[in-house]
Amino acid sequence: MRRFIVIGHRASTTPDFPLDDLAGGAGRMDLLLTAANAALLVSHDLRRDSDATLVLLGPPDPPRAVRLDGARLQSLSPDLRTNAGLLRKALAHGGRVERETSPGAFASRRGIVDVLEGIREPLIHLREDGNDIREVEIPREVAFILSDSIELTGEEEAVVARRRKAVCSVGPVSVHTSDAIAIVHNEMDRRHPA
Amino acid sequence: MRRFIVIGHRASTTPDFPLDDLAGGAGRMDLLLTAANAALLVSHDLRRDSDATLVLLGPPDPPRAVRLDGARLQSLSPDLRTNAGLLRKALAHGGRVERETSPGAFASRRGIVDVLEGIREPLIHLREDGNDIREVEIPREVAFILSDSIELTGEEEAVVARRRKAVCSVGPVSVHTSDAIAIVHNEMDRRHPA
Repeated sequence: MRRFIVIGHRASTTPDFPLDDLAGGAGRMDLLLTAANAALLVSHDLRRDSDATLVLLGPPDPPRAVRLDGARLQSLSPDLRTNAGLLRKALAHGGRVERETSPGAFASRRGIVDVLEGIREPLIHLREDGNDIREVEIPREVAFILSDSIELTGEEEAVVARRRKAVCSVGPVSVHTSDAIAIVHNEMDRRHPA
Repeated sequence: MRRFIVIGHRASTTPDFPLDDLAGGAGRMDLLLTAANAALLVSHDLRRDSDATLVLLGPPDPPRAVRLDGARLQSLSPDLRTNAGLLRKALAHGGRVERETSPGAFASRRGIVDVLEGIREPLIHLREDGNDIREVEIPREVAFILSDSIELTGEEEAVVARRRKAVCSVGPVSVHTSDAIAIVHNEMDRRHPA
């Protein structure tokens, strides 16, 4: 399993977030959805060995985690607006225990601490100032954590630091979250062919 | 200059294409806009040394080329819907001669042949069955051409073949156009630091 955990600091936590203003009123939901697509889509198919967990920390009712499981998703659209519908449905479930709110989409009231407790794979923290990912040994079964356009808070950084095996950067230029995921997949595809 | 030329076989060529159905009614305009973002955006900034030329070949009035120039764009949104407005404005210009329809956006009635005639840089064709990009020498000043989710037609392939210096693939897995661009940028950023 190749996991990506993406922290959305401002991402809306109401199922009523606006579909027509994903980048604004929905709190950069566009960024999370683009990241999910980079984590899960290949040409004409889904990555069945990958999942993306979106951690939504914006108002009005944080935290929420929405996990999209490539093995169980029936489809994921390249169109963000369509996928936003999946997230809306997931956010309608506010319970602590994870529930499958649509095929392959799992929702729960969990923040970074709880999400990290739920994974067994070694954790790689993706951050601009990390070691070059091409120089770091990374196992096939792995989880990557990365932030949206806002850096982790001191408290979040501490939580991740206790759990991570390494801090890696994807290259010399600071890129968008989804582009970083695409670069990580490429590196992993080269090292660990399916 | 690092150029990306993206062929949108079905992309709408009317300024009235639907903003709420970029993936459907607008002919996978979402794919072209996501590709443009991958070509031009880095964290908190634009790639000033890059440009993206979108070649729109769908109905009702093809061909059209819209060139987004990172050096002149005042901004580009991570939000596709906002950028779709730029394209609409560009498509309102149907003349053969390129015109700047908004700051950094240039429109013309040109197809693949004319677009390729207009560039001086060596051309790299990005295609799944090409040579691994990590093994190919690529100069700093270069143009990459790639297709949307549809392969080039025989005629298009012949046009590109006459002009290209190499055919490269980004890795062992066939990925979406925008992810391929992110991977290419990463490779170029490593080889040719700003």
